[in-house]
Amino acid sequence: MYAYKLAARREGSPDTIIDINCKSGTLKIGAGYCTIIAGPCSVESREKYLEIATLIKDSGVHILRGGAYKPRTSPYSFAGLGLEGLKILAEARELTGLPVITELLDVRDMEKVCYYSDIIQIGSRNMHNFALLKELGKTDKPVVLKRGFAATVEEWLLAGEYILNAGNEKVILCERGIRTFEQMTRNTVDIGAVALIKELSHLPVIVDPSHATGKSSLVAPVAKASVAAGADGLMIEVHQRPEEALSDGAQSLQPQVFSILVEDIKKLAVLNGRVFR
Amino acid sequence: MYAYKLAARREGSPDTIIDINCKSGTLKIGAGYCTIIAGPCSVESREKYLEIATLIKDSGVHILRGGAYKPRTSPYSFAGLGLEGLKILAEARELTGLPVITELLDVRDMEKVCYYSDIIQIGSRNMHNFALLKELGKTDKPVVLKRGFAATVEEWLLAGEYILNAGNEKVILCERGIRTFEQMTRNTVDIGAVALIKELSHLPVIVDPSHATGKSSLVAPVAKASVAAGADGLMIEVHQRPEEALSDGAQSLQPQVFSILVEDIKKLAVLNGRVFR
Amino acid sequence: MYAYKLAARREGSPDTIIDINCKSGTLKIGAGYCTIIAGPCSVESREKYLEIATLIKDSGVHILRGGAYKPRTSPYSFAGLGLEGLKILAEARELTGLPVITELLDVRDMEKVCYYSDIIQIGSRNMHNFALLKELGKTDKPVVLKRGFAATVEEWLLAGEYILNAGNEKVILCERGIRTFEQMTRNTVDIGAVALIKELSHLPVIVDPSHATGKSSLVAPVAKASVAAGADGLMIEVHQRPEEALSDGAQSLQPQVFSILVEDIKKLAVLNGRVFR
Amino acid sequence: MYAYKLAARREGSPDTIIDINCKSGTLKIGAGYCTIIAGPCSVESREKYLEIATLIKDSGVHILRGGAYKPRTSPYSFAGLGLEGLKILAEARELTGLPVITELLDVRDMEKVCYYSDIIQIGSRNMHNFALLKELGKTDKPVVLKRGFAATVEEWLLAGEYILNAGNEKVILCERGIRTFEQMTRNTVDIGAVALIKELSHLPVIVDPSHATGKSSLVAPVAKASVAAGADGLMIEVHQRPEEALSDGAQSLQPQVFSILVEDIKKLAVLNGRVFR
Repeated sequence: MYAYKLAARREGSPDTIIDINCKSGTLKIGAGYCTIIAGPCSVESREKYLEIATLIKDSGVHILRGGAYKPRTSPYSFAGLGLEGLKILAEARELTGLPVITELLDVRDMEKVCYYSDIIQIGSRNMHNFALLKELGKTDKPVVLKRGFAATVEEWLLAGEYILNAGNEKVILCERGIRTFEQMTRNTVDIGAVALIKELSHLPVIVDPSHATGKSSLVAPVAKASVAAGADGLMIEVHQRPEEALSDGAQSLQPQVFSILVEDIKKLAVLNGRVFR
Repeated sequence: MYAYKLAARREGSPDTIIDINCKSGTLKIGAGYCTIIAGPCSVESREKYLEIATLIKDSGVHILRGGAYKPRTSPYSFAGLGLEGLKILAEARELTGLPVITELLDVRDMEKVCYYSDIIQIGSRNMHNFALLKELGKTDKPVVLKRGFAATVEEWLLAGEYILNAGNEKVILCERGIRTFEQMTRNTVDIGAVALIKELSHLPVIVDPSHATGKSSLVAPVAKASVAAGADGLMIEVHQRPEEALSDGAQSLQPQVFSILVEDIKKLAVLNGRVFR
Repeated sequence: MYAYKLAARREGSPDTIIDINCKSGTLKIGAGYCTIIAGPCSVESREKYLEIATLIKDSGVHILRGGAYKPRTSPYSFAGLGLEGLKILAEARELTGLPVITELLDVRDMEKVCYYSDIIQIGSRNMHNFALLKELGKTDKPVVLKRGFAATVEEWLLAGEYILNAGNEKVILCERGIRTFEQMTRNTVDIGAVALIKELSHLPVIVDPSHATGKSSLVAPVAKASVAAGADGLMIEVHQRPEEALSDGAQSLQPQVFSILVEDIKKLAVLNGRVFR
Repeated sequence: MYAYKLAARREGSPDTIIDINCKSGTLKIGAGYCTIIAGPCSVESREKYLEIATLIKDSGVHILRGGAYKPRTSPYSFAGLGLEGLKILAEARELTGLPVITELLDVRDMEKVCYYSDIIQIGSRNMHNFALLKELGKTDKPVVLKRGFAATVEEWLLAGEYILNAGNEKVILCERGIRTFEQMTRNTVDIGAVALIKELSHLPVIVDPSHATGKSSLVAPVAKASVAAGADGLMIEVHQRPEEALSDGAQSLQPQVFSILVEDIKKLAVLNGRVFR
């Protein structure tokens, strides 16, 4: 119906691989690789963020995540540390040598967020925020574009097209579950869409099993399912004390559980013919 | 689960009535009134907009609508005339004496849009754009807040709470259909939610039967249903030549069909104890 | 995609009107009429059923409802009185002069249910039970065919086609809400589908606002919306003591509330050009 | 909310393993095993069924599937060969030594279907057909209970409870995708529900990636995802000439593609600690 052109698979052309520069060299996301993004939902304090970053840095994580600006359903909920959070992320990068990703909510924060973060995350609620997408399209920052929680696969690819069409080729799609009638999980992860995107597009696609399920015990099986279905990576919430988390504690893994999961993912990735550095 | 406080019905207090100043005096939206907003989806040109405004101004319409900034699924679709569109709306206001409403997409356009428009519309895709809601909360402009197409009633009220909590009390909710498995209509209008909102909140709630159904032949029955269910008004797309519309032609009414519908709505509103000026 | 032929609107032919014979003459359902079906969810006891039937018989109700066989999500819930319930319904018919409707669940109960009941109800869960539909198609009993709670309009019409194609022309469609992500109402009543059905088909369509909303306070606004949208009637749950009901108490109206609603519906039906005997 | 008791995981008790007797001994379904059910959607003719059964019998398939009674959306579609189809299935069992599974639609066909088939399938549309479930509960036939396409996990477990409560402990759950707004796949496979069921219940759970996706190219990735998520097996549609299939051709695998998939599944199952005979 609609035409996504730049996001569409190009006959005879290889899948897109996106390079992320970091201390230890260049990290590759896309065809043939399996990339793990992990960290807490929010940057809650300098001390806690550096602690968790240190705890997981040797577990196989490739990129650290943490929200400085948090979109919250209620105006009365914790909304992130803002600029202070960005600075903590940058400090964690120095400490661990790992690149960082954080969410951009407001077009007016773009310079700041692009300055401090290696990768920009567009959350589910902003997939339809075309003003934001077009501005990101003018930068050369890699963008993780989460699927709107009620967006069709076509709308998701067209949201990517907004960024591509404005000149930025570094788009990574992220399935994070869609909203359905089922209420026992926070969202319904659309595993078929992951496989479908690999068929329709040359862009890398990763999965966020934490938001998709909302339940820490389901993160590992859904993470494994995602890699088995062909996902190019995972974004996983990890917290040193999930029960004390300011947001999304119920879906966060403890570091040691995360560490075991990464081992399983490695084996699965290798079985599927992927490189897992 | 979440607490909307300012949006909640206050025991013993009357429902909110919002005053809109216009040439002919003060227009009232809310408890006891039935308000009709109408016009084309987009402001397509000066000539066409002034023509349709003139055609419908005596049909019982209270407020003129028209998009100057259009959120479009594809980056390749017509996205509105921008500032030029705003100026055309202002000219139509002078010509007809009717207040105007238009959609705000980007926080950077706020001054302009607030300068030219009497009422600000937040579209379905931006219901979760909390940065935009908070900025609007700092103004005293009436806001029509459309329900996110996959937002729960609770999330919708909490989006309103963002505006109220920032200091702006002039919030009008607008049901425009939700996304479901049914594909024969563009969306599924949630008529029960209209009644539910009247129970839970003191805010006015209107319905957009055009986007809700996507089909012009269904606009009249759904419009009537909305008023019968207790809606405080309607937002209806009207175009002089629907088949030539640059957006949403399939769901637009011709002026003479619209005129007949308004007559039916008047009778229904009166039967339901409403004032229809 | 699929072809419903017998259920489709026939160019130049009038809408179907179904005759129900009862003590006081012939009741008509369909084009131009507005029919009210009411009663408790289940026939709970002889005493209680005859009491409620007597209480509502002069309120404008045309047909009495009551479940003798109840489909229940859990095997441990009250599942109806069975044959005893059917006999109570027949007794209520004698007492009030009103025809009765009850649900058929199992093809093996067909003779019994057809013997005692004037109209057969196929519930939402059985809309896809094609064996049952085909058997009903061989009878001449009027059938109220509820929409599957996740059935498309097309699938619903094709379920009707199963009955029509087997030889029974007396099919009345009943919208009872569809399952969506919204959890504050039991289901989401698809008011646009009511208008759509009137466009696509010649069959009568009624609405069940009780199951659609699951909340007694929303029954009246949704009932009015349904008639305003063009529904040919309503099916409403009424219970003398809703808080003691064995099933669906939360959505049942008290007789005096029901009586006021019927008065409102009458006015609305007349405004819409309907006959309300 | 509702209490499923017999279907619930029992603290300290092992997961249920269901024995299926066949020529070559006893086949086990459940904890620790990975079982493949495969075959065409419908038994289309004796010749074609025996051909496909022969083609796939050495590919690692454990159980042959084939519909003799087909539930179809339209009364004008091919509805299966009935008794003749059952006899062909029995002949295929003799020929291959593999047990067979087929769908039961109508309680009046139960004796016949139980006589010819080793396992009884309850399709998605009949998950809510409690009369059928209770009758099956009185037999000792293993039952594959597909999830209703709009059933919650809780409703699905309670449907299983109907069978268990009537005395039959041999219930195998089958996820086959749920109905959502996404239209590019036939259904949305709920991979999180597979993991959730393993947590909530002791019953085996398998996945049908063919119906879940409706697209043959997506069957392999979703099949692998299912096993990685912890499913106890798969039900896959295979047809020697998918383009000529009387039903579900678009989602059927060719035998050689199926054969490769089974090899991949074996490795994955072993990696996940499963036995694959």
